Amino acid sequence: MTDCGTCKRLGDKNSLVYETNYWKISLNDDQAYLGRCFVDLKRHCGDLAELKKEELLDFLEVVKILESALRKAFGAVMFNWTCLMNDAYKAKIPKPHVHWHFRPRYDKKVKFAGLIFEDLEFAHHYSRERKLEVSREVKKKIIEKISENLKGRAK
Amino acid sequence: MTDCGTCKRLGDKNSLVYETNYWKISLNDDQAYLGRCFVDLKRHCGDLAELKKEELLDFLEVVKILESALRKAFGAVMFNWTCLMNDAYKAKIPKPHVHWHFRPRYDKKVKFAGLIFEDLEFAHHYSRERKLEVSREVKKKIIEKISENLKGRAK
Repeated sequence: MTDCGTCKRLGDKNSLVYETNYWKISLNDDQAYLGRCFVDLKRHCGDLAELKKEELLDFLEVVKILESALRKAFGAVMFNWTCLMNDAYKAKIPKPHVHWHFRPRYDKKVKFAGLIFEDLEFAHHYSRERKLEVSREVKKKIIEKISENLKGRAK
Repeated sequence: MTDCGTCKRLGDKNSLVYETNYWKISLNDDQAYLGRCFVDLKRHCGDLAELKKEELLDFLEVVKILESALRKAFGAVMFNWTCLMNDAYKAKIPKPHVHWHFRPRYDKKVKFAGLIFEDLEFAHHYSRERKLEVSREVKKKIIEKISENLKGRAK
């Protein structure tokens, strides 16, 4: 759908981490929480309540696979999952599209790709002010490292 | 489980809005977002990835029923769902317990029980600073109003 940021992201394969039948996982440009991803429903659907059972069960598989990969790749301790969709309601005619924000959380510094990633808010709500935009090269390395640790890849 | 805030909340029936086989919904003391609730898994389980299929499918029913009730009761426009569990990690031995924060969001002021509720951040991320603790009487009225609008109550 045009005018839908999530549909647009679905069309972009540059940040692709993983995909299943119903969901596509893309690395977020902001890596303040190392491994932060978007998990986008592949069809344009505006409300969590309208998910089909098979989509939700597939989401559970995504949660398992992604959390496991991030623990192994970088030692993530726990994870924040949020389904918000606020931005879509800035438009006169909102076109929300179900997607999740996935933030791995860490109790230790992580050195990777020549950088130090530190979760300064561990055990507290994530910060929206603290941002860390990484280079395209570092993004690629993060994706590779997560990919190496994915199990049961559907595609 | 002792030392688990979510288990403690499960034992408290004062704020009960609704319950299903696997989930209990309680009204949050903070009503900055009118109808804000906790949705607690009834068993002590520490990770979204460990949910059983039947628990997740039951959660989908909760989402449907609760969103529908809040639209009808107060005209909520959309909803923020977050599964965070940060607080549990403040402890030396964390005992996380899967629960959701449910925040209905509004594009208009809502007058109810002699108060005016206003979502000052509509179409933006929820505020954690803006709090609105309401009296026990108002809380009871909010719960009653939501309850009147619940469909397909399991219990």
